[in-house]
Amino acid sequence: MAFKTLGYELPVSNKMKMTLEAFENVKEITPGEDLADVIFDSASRNRWQWHNRDIIVLAQKIVSKAEGRLVNLKTVKPSPQAIKYAQYVDKDVRLIELILQESRRVLRTRAGLMIVQHKLGFICANAGIDHSNISIDGNLSEDFVLLLPENPDQSAENLRTRLLQLTGKQIGVLIIDSHGRAWRKGVVGISIGFSGIPAIIDLRGRKDRNNYSLKITEISPVDELSAAASLLMGQADEGRPLVAVRGFPYDLRDSNLSEVIREENLDLFR
Amino acid sequence: MAFKTLGYELPVSNKMKMTLEAFENVKEITPGEDLADVIFDSASRNRWQWHNRDIIVLAQKIVSKAEGRLVNLKTVKPSPQAIKYAQYVDKDVRLIELILQESRRVLRTRAGLMIVQHKLGFICANAGIDHSNISIDGNLSEDFVLLLPENPDQSAENLRTRLLQLTGKQIGVLIIDSHGRAWRKGVVGISIGFSGIPAIIDLRGRKDRNNYSLKITEISPVDELSAAASLLMGQADEGRPLVAVRGFPYDLRDSNLSEVIREENLDLFR
Repeated sequence: MAFKTLGYELPVSNKMKMTLEAFENVKEITPGEDLADVIFDSASRNRWQWHNRDIIVLAQKIVSKAEGRLVNLKTVKPSPQAIKYAQYVDKDVRLIELILQESRRVLRTRAGLMIVQHKLGFICANAGIDHSNISIDGNLSEDFVLLLPENPDQSAENLRTRLLQLTGKQIGVLIIDSHGRAWRKGVVGISIGFSGIPAIIDLRGRKDRNNYSLKITEISPVDELSAAASLLMGQADEGRPLVAVRGFPYDLRDSNLSEVIREENLDLFR
Repeated sequence: MAFKTLGYELPVSNKMKMTLEAFENVKEITPGEDLADVIFDSASRNRWQWHNRDIIVLAQKIVSKAEGRLVNLKTVKPSPQAIKYAQYVDKDVRLIELILQESRRVLRTRAGLMIVQHKLGFICANAGIDHSNISIDGNLSEDFVLLLPENPDQSAENLRTRLLQLTGKQIGVLIIDSHGRAWRKGVVGISIGFSGIPAIIDLRGRKDRNNYSLKITEISPVDELSAAASLLMGQADEGRPLVAVRGFPYDLRDSNLSEVIREENLDLFR
């Protein structure tokens, strides 16, 4: 379903103010879970009243879990290529095989680390495959790993449509992961799929208040919002995979991940 | 002055909630301006009541302006090296000279773009030199450009000390710019200097709720907060260079920019 903009321009109030709130006590997600219901119920229990233009941010992990992206390493047969990488990347060869299956190409390797271009288009470590927070029927399960959602843009769009039905409100949906970066230490929250949220705002041709052309021509609000929401989710055992946002300062519109991926021939750092 | 932590642990409330508010009608900043006074006055006029653990985020541009980092291009003598770069970088040779002076080394070039390691340690485009929003005595001034602050960590620490005096509160101070990124389009807000805000949270050794070691070991709250605040500042003629933050979910502590810069020998993308 194409996103219908609401037909009004920002700012809604003349105060630029944004609030982010992590929902508490979100249930543990299992395969087949209806995440729209989980969001709707969590919002109610957290006394969050939905407004048009609100955004719900989801940790990738719960989307992957709901979509059954768990893989038992015992079922993985390493390819010759994986066996080759295993000689110098310090990782389980079956995990290397999954990383290769999830990737278009490998950019760099180092002990314990493979930087790849994921099938979804972005560059990230270890194809975003996660080996933490995974329990099967309440038990630790060292043999299982969690792949990224197959099509996070589509997952986000489906959720947005369901949330419109459940709430009657136009709510943007953003799925984030935490990625390392070139040049700087520490991961930051970043978008891997979304619906209704502008990936890029193009300022080309706009002037500043002294009528100069701007030095900056494109900004990425969706990644700025991803980082903001990630702050409230934490990374360890906090269990806060849902963050609701009010006051995002741009109009919601159709957009998707490909808008924010730099074309390879324009990328100076691959 | 060393930062004194407040000696209590997060969360202050059991609700994880963060609010960011851009101050309206911040005055145009001129060289020599006392930014602590500007922040204090803007907060009052915007009815912002300071609490301990609040953070004030400043756009780099106003710090640079207050510190007199304007340079008249007419005073710049290009070096032979700048003249060489000018043959294939489509930029004013005097601006190239300033970029070189502000940088440790040049990593990549392309028409209109020089990616450098700034003297301050980080990688960025064109040494962060800005040619927009610059007016001298209210007039457009095409000959002037604005360099980054000489020592943003120190600027932030001085402001924090002054704000403690003015408000009686422990307030974190963060100076941000907008940087492009490897691999993804659009700039995002990023830290160039700060005081009181943790650059990196080290999760090594911590376990998730299933007792697994975490896939992610270091996160960068200061850069996540920079992106969040940048969302509310905009990039064009909005004139919102100050964003106040409440509910940052980590304890304030001594920290500085060098914590977040990846060592060159560990960086796979220089």
